[in-house]
Amino acid sequence: MSNLKLKIAYDGTSYVGWQRQATGSSVQGCVEAVLGEIEGSSVIAVGAGRTDAGVHALGQVANVRLRRRMAVGSVIRAVNSRLPKDIRVVDAEIVQDSFHARFDATAKVYRYRLIHGEVMNPFARRYGWWQRAEFDTERMNEAGQLLVGEHDFASFQAAGSSTDTTVRRLFSLSVTRAQAGQLWSEDDELGDMTIIEVRGSGFLRHMVRVIVGSLVQVGVGRWDNTDIERALVACDRALAGPTAPPQGLFLMRVDYE
Amino acid sequence: MSNLKLKIAYDGTSYVGWQRQATGSSVQGCVEAVLGEIEGSSVIAVGAGRTDAGVHALGQVANVRLRRRMAVGSVIRAVNSRLPKDIRVVDAEIVQDSFHARFDATAKVYRYRLIHGEVMNPFARRYGWWQRAEFDTERMNEAGQLLVGEHDFASFQAAGSSTDTTVRRLFSLSVTRAQAGQLWSEDDELGDMTIIEVRGSGFLRHMVRVIVGSLVQVGVGRWDNTDIERALVACDRALAGPTAPPQGLFLMRVDYE
Repeated sequence: MSNLKLKIAYDGTSYVGWQRQATGSSVQGCVEAVLGEIEGSSVIAVGAGRTDAGVHALGQVANVRLRRRMAVGSVIRAVNSRLPKDIRVVDAEIVQDSFHARFDATAKVYRYRLIHGEVMNPFARRYGWWQRAEFDTERMNEAGQLLVGEHDFASFQAAGSSTDTTVRRLFSLSVTRAQAGQLWSEDDELGDMTIIEVRGSGFLRHMVRVIVGSLVQVGVGRWDNTDIERALVACDRALAGPTAPPQGLFLMRVDYE
Repeated sequence: MSNLKLKIAYDGTSYVGWQRQATGSSVQGCVEAVLGEIEGSSVIAVGAGRTDAGVHALGQVANVRLRRRMAVGSVIRAVNSRLPKDIRVVDAEIVQDSFHARFDATAKVYRYRLIHGEVMNPFARRYGWWQRAEFDTERMNEAGQLLVGEHDFASFQAAGSSTDTTVRRLFSLSVTRAQAGQLWSEDDELGDMTIIEVRGSGFLRHMVRVIVGSLVQVGVGRWDNTDIERALVACDRALAGPTAPPQGLFLMRVDYE
């Protein structure tokens, strides 16, 4: 029996999210089906975290226990040759039996892409949130620092969520401006972007997207620091900003000890 | 009556190409349908060039004659609010009555993206040709220079094409290495890319894709300069390389006097 740690990238556009659900095709379901074929019996892929419908990942982590002995490179090739093209295992390693992708995670890094431009970039529409308005990136970054640290993030989660505790630790948050990449470099109209990156111990449902929606209010000048502070203290979803759409969000990395 | 010059970007994944066809949805068909709604009668959008099924554009140019007088900004907004999300008019201007998007074009610039990596990048799969092999970019660039100038490109077109003449002028060709953009910068496994850019007076059907397929043969060391020269001189499709798939190709720009 070997415990395999997988690093998985996926375009979440066509999926109900990481987690298996009755309502549609999930990334976890696809990965388990393919590994089950190779193993010859059903397997469970434990993911580091759920991602919502339409959310992407460059570095989701999952672990699976396999009886069959295979070289890691062979597993990667066998799995990728069977997976749909929008999901890929990008790395794999054999880890200690005790390793658990969810319980052992010490931090997760998410990135959100806001694409600027007078006209929506048709190539970025699946991978960012289009914004016609200009942002004050510095003010967003400053306001975002108020969320760093250990806080009760009850205002910053999907309405109606129930969890044991809504206290989470945000290690860092940065708001930066970037070019939208090589493909678009000749065409200024197709825009540049604002990237919001957060690293935290764990995240409530929709937490990153509500943080993004709130910082956008600051970016366009509708809110200032006091609105962010008020929302945080209130522990009331109604006081935070709108939930940013899923297609701009990427799970970049999961950290372990 | 005003003659409107439109600059159009589109993700070609879901289309049979620029040109109206009985077999499926075309970009031209979508643009004409939307402009026809605004105009109140059918219109014709003359495109600078056809793009094949699955080929993208950042700077396709078309002209349309409209009876209705509207400010250019209003046309852009009205059209974009009705177009599918994978097509966008990124710019528009009123031009002389005599302007014709196809006949007046003096050059077109195409770019082809080859994405490198041990594992296919799920975000690049619709916008590049995945390559596991490493390329010798310098040798590709050197071989590509043999195609620059006025030549009979009969070897470098889709088999069975019929045109008056297969002589075309290639103004420039460059093969360069680039990073795959901001989104992927943290994950080396998700790769960098080779970009082949060509500028020419006009292109035969599949010409850019056959050039790319041929230069890839050079890049992996299977061919050298003499193979490219032989293919060019032969005027025989069988001597050129395979046709590269459409999803890596972008019409970047159309030049006018």
